[in-house]
Amino acid sequence: MSTLAAQTPNSDEPQTEIFQTKRVISPALEEILYEPLQVLDHGFVRVIDYMGDDSAIVQAARVSYGKGTKRKSQDRGLIHYLMRHMHTTPFEMCEIKYHIKLPIFIARQWIRHRTANVNEYSARYSILDNEFYIPQPEHIASQSEQNNQGRGKALSSEQTEYVINLLKEDAQRNYDHYQEFLNEDAEGNIIDPSKDGLARELARMNLTLNCYTQWYWKIDLHNLMHFLALRADSHAQYEIRAYADIMLDTLKRWVPIAYEAFEQYRQGSARISKNGLATIQQMLQGKEITQADSGMSQREWDELMATLNLTN
Amino acid sequence: MSTLAAQTPNSDEPQTEIFQTKRVISPALEEILYEPLQVLDHGFVRVIDYMGDDSAIVQAARVSYGKGTKRKSQDRGLIHYLMRHMHTTPFEMCEIKYHIKLPIFIARQWIRHRTANVNEYSARYSILDNEFYIPQPEHIASQSEQNNQGRGKALSSEQTEYVINLLKEDAQRNYDHYQEFLNEDAEGNIIDPSKDGLARELARMNLTLNCYTQWYWKIDLHNLMHFLALRADSHAQYEIRAYADIMLDTLKRWVPIAYEAFEQYRQGSARISKNGLATIQQMLQGKEITQADSGMSQREWDELMATLNLTN
Amino acid sequence: MSTLAAQTPNSDEPQTEIFQTKRVISPALEEILYEPLQVLDHGFVRVIDYMGDDSAIVQAARVSYGKGTKRKSQDRGLIHYLMRHMHTTPFEMCEIKYHIKLPIFIARQWIRHRTANVNEYSARYSILDNEFYIPQPEHIASQSEQNNQGRGKALSSEQTEYVINLLKEDAQRNYDHYQEFLNEDAEGNIIDPSKDGLARELARMNLTLNCYTQWYWKIDLHNLMHFLALRADSHAQYEIRAYADIMLDTLKRWVPIAYEAFEQYRQGSARISKNGLATIQQMLQGKEITQADSGMSQREWDELMATLNLTN
Amino acid sequence: MSTLAAQTPNSDEPQTEIFQTKRVISPALEEILYEPLQVLDHGFVRVIDYMGDDSAIVQAARVSYGKGTKRKSQDRGLIHYLMRHMHTTPFEMCEIKYHIKLPIFIARQWIRHRTANVNEYSARYSILDNEFYIPQPEHIASQSEQNNQGRGKALSSEQTEYVINLLKEDAQRNYDHYQEFLNEDAEGNIIDPSKDGLARELARMNLTLNCYTQWYWKIDLHNLMHFLALRADSHAQYEIRAYADIMLDTLKRWVPIAYEAFEQYRQGSARISKNGLATIQQMLQGKEITQADSGMSQREWDELMATLNLTN
Repeated sequence: MSTLAAQTPNSDEPQTEIFQTKRVISPALEEILYEPLQVLDHGFVRVIDYMGDDSAIVQAARVSYGKGTKRKSQDRGLIHYLMRHMHTTPFEMCEIKYHIKLPIFIARQWIRHRTANVNEYSARYSILDNEFYIPQPEHIASQSEQNNQGRGKALSSEQTEYVINLLKEDAQRNYDHYQEFLNEDAEGNIIDPSKDGLARELARMNLTLNCYTQWYWKIDLHNLMHFLALRADSHAQYEIRAYADIMLDTLKRWVPIAYEAFEQYRQGSARISKNGLATIQQMLQGKEITQADSGMSQREWDELMATLNLTN
Repeated sequence: MSTLAAQTPNSDEPQTEIFQTKRVISPALEEILYEPLQVLDHGFVRVIDYMGDDSAIVQAARVSYGKGTKRKSQDRGLIHYLMRHMHTTPFEMCEIKYHIKLPIFIARQWIRHRTANVNEYSARYSILDNEFYIPQPEHIASQSEQNNQGRGKALSSEQTEYVINLLKEDAQRNYDHYQEFLNEDAEGNIIDPSKDGLARELARMNLTLNCYTQWYWKIDLHNLMHFLALRADSHAQYEIRAYADIMLDTLKRWVPIAYEAFEQYRQGSARISKNGLATIQQMLQGKEITQADSGMSQREWDELMATLNLTN
Repeated sequence: MSTLAAQTPNSDEPQTEIFQTKRVISPALEEILYEPLQVLDHGFVRVIDYMGDDSAIVQAARVSYGKGTKRKSQDRGLIHYLMRHMHTTPFEMCEIKYHIKLPIFIARQWIRHRTANVNEYSARYSILDNEFYIPQPEHIASQSEQNNQGRGKALSSEQTEYVINLLKEDAQRNYDHYQEFLNEDAEGNIIDPSKDGLARELARMNLTLNCYTQWYWKIDLHNLMHFLALRADSHAQYEIRAYADIMLDTLKRWVPIAYEAFEQYRQGSARISKNGLATIQQMLQGKEITQADSGMSQREWDELMATLNLTN
Repeated sequence: MSTLAAQTPNSDEPQTEIFQTKRVISPALEEILYEPLQVLDHGFVRVIDYMGDDSAIVQAARVSYGKGTKRKSQDRGLIHYLMRHMHTTPFEMCEIKYHIKLPIFIARQWIRHRTANVNEYSARYSILDNEFYIPQPEHIASQSEQNNQGRGKALSSEQTEYVINLLKEDAQRNYDHYQEFLNEDAEGNIIDPSKDGLARELARMNLTLNCYTQWYWKIDLHNLMHFLALRADSHAQYEIRAYADIMLDTLKRWVPIAYEAFEQYRQGSARISKNGLATIQQMLQGKEITQADSGMSQREWDELMATLNLTN
């Protein structure tokens, strides 16, 4: 089974060389450039390149505001102001490129974010690795009863073991047949010279959705934060959240001030509806208000109470 | 196994009602609206809605050109002119919405076109159907020796049978285990009341890439033609081309003049490189020119000769 | 000076014909189809075409949620749920196309929304009309002292009159010179046969930014609501807000349930920051909290107090 | 009147500092980083930042093709192959950011390319400079008689002088009134303390379309080449072509191999229609073919003959 080092095919990347540049740099991000940060059992996230830092956000904003904002001398205040007021275009002026290895069923969620540039490993050209995601026992859970798309309580340990074994067995058998179809072993040697190999674009259909794929994924800072706000959220599937959490660390290294503003005005914030605001206003005036009077459904009411830390 | 009718979940679609509208209509497209057009073994393409027709392209172009083009009185000439000169924005003024059922490995190719709006069936919420794509024997072919990503000659009939049987067996076994994990049968009945079902978002990872998914897919005419130019091409994988071919028929019904222009200036056309043009110019002047003199590689030269119908 | 009727160049639009269609229709929107709705002194908004209605949002959502949401039988509840949880893709399944006439300086703000399809009247091909926006006296205001980009109190009536007269005079003179450059009058007759006309692409540079242009503008429902949330807002410039307000009426006619949800969860809602939520939580627990303790700047604090209706 | 140096407001850019980075660099582009390259009378193009170089294209392509393309050892061949076959995604993996100063009527053409990120100088916040584009006498031409949107022969020198003088006079007068409206001089001093200044968002409408604006403009390499193919073309308006030509030089410095491929397969190439190919095939077989037989209009025929260098 391959090591992380072997999983990083672009050995021609200038991983150890140091160049001189007039461009702005992000020192903390430079430290981990090219380094595979492990996610799940065989996945990783690697920062491959980036453009801009916190100062680039400020520069772009100052072009928009021109002389009129000379007074806004402090970068931190300006970045917080931009984030608070959803002035998103200056954040689009920074860009980052990742190399990511991830299970196919997660890649299918991920690709729905259409604002990134992507180059994925092609299973029409090439042979996928013999690697598939098998969850750790603590992540094997039942369907949630509250939430149509989430996980609920853990399965019994017998059921968990049964599921894990079957996942392994099915993925491995299907991969073995995939190789047999291709008539090629892992080193690219022909298995049976008397036969032809099935076209790769066909053979791949026998693989399971927990096989790993990989891609280069490039996105601007604004759209990255949008992705992370959705995917590092508690409603996201654990397996994609595992990637988003690691990427939050790279965000913090890259643009520490924007990260701080992101936590304050996105991640830690909440959107309160018109009825929700009216309810809070009445509460603050000391009036009694019930769900029935609020104009909100029971579910909305419960969500608001949770947001306000008023759940008993 | 489900019939096509059963595969179309939105029974609340107004499939048989007739409404009155002041909007332009496309009569030939109205004829097949909502009708599932079969593709592959279990897939389909259905046109669900559309906006605009050939006249809408002309209207939009005339806003751009204003009074200056009153002379361009003929719609056909104007549409051909726009296509020939890559004036693409008037084609963006028409929109179409499809409901498509397709194998997951094809959905993964398809979704790389980022300019469409998509709502896909969610396997976090819902249970996928017990259906998977099994190629017809005539489509079981070996890896191409010329082309790194294509198919070459047919496999032997024994190998073909072997591959088909194994594809069926593996897909069905993995689906059966999926259902067992969910602890739910096809009708949504709990199989073993003493057990919990595994979360759907986890169970799905055991499925094979030839399982069918479905989505609503909405795109403007310009981007649809770009998609079709790539996917109805002989270099595209057979399975996605099968969809593109059916969609070309819907294009022809929808905007017959634009379709004609598309055939003339996109599908049937070729881009000739700078060196290729110089080569043709010399040939037309009666000069002898060889690959070595042309500045082109052997492969480029061969492609040009094929385009010029000069292959011996 | 042209009337609204004369401003609508596409006389080949099927404005009075009635067609039959199997597509869903939006009856209240059909009523005003093609009708120019006046905005500012010479501008208008006309709905030219649309695709889908409230039911199309629901259909698309049900494809995503599949059998799992059969219980969500009520469309209104589902649409509110989608809007509340920012599940935006089903709203992308509806599309609308407008014909809009607007001053150039407003067109420059508007075009920054990149998610629409646009065909603009081309001043390289055609001659712009002799029309420019002159604000009503009540909209002539001074630069705001609080807000770097807004308007403050009214100017004196003398100053107002002075400004209006000069705006008229400068725009008209520059237009007259434009026509002289072109050597063509409003009817397209050559003014002085002994001269050539300056190229239109050059002559236009003499025009002022309050000249009117026009375009076809097509957008999906999700992105339209994003546009309207920003441009029907009190921070938007009055002149673009005038357009957004009229478009809100067309939104209400088109998709009445989505409009209601938009009002509840976007327009009338507020995003409260992490510090803001902590402040509200403390207030609701009866604790005293001051701006200094809140972690917010004075400006943020003031904004929060205004949102909570706690401004004295 | 401002010098180029004064026109570059972001004096906090690290223009002279040298940093160390592990990222790939483009040495020839580093040489001109931050340097304003003059365009037209007061405009400029400056490269502010970039991500990637020719090797980044190759890296991204090799992720897609995986082990299957180990044989494609030569970068140049691979980049040419990608360009020739319109495999565009690897080119999206490079990004560049420009600071550009340009006349408003050119900015209006430019912004129609929706695939870039933009931060424009805001005339709601800030005061525009007293600068406007006045064409050189040799660029003052009449409307083309062949081409509805182009320029034809030069105007007489009297007419040229007349036009230039009037352009100057009108632009300056309107700018003077703009300043009077604002009640602020170029240094930001209040002109008449007894008066209020008109809101900037209103005052700007009196300016002419040849006033200069500026923006940061960030785009990926694929979309940049698409922009340049259209805007460095002989059909583009001279004033935008002047910018595109300078940007071609920056492209050549940044990614010299991709630039070479761009010249070969885009700029110097031609798309030949289905009928055009059939015509060439017949000519090469020595058959006589006339426009009437070709299925092409006279105009198409003439264009083809020009492409084939067969115009007499």
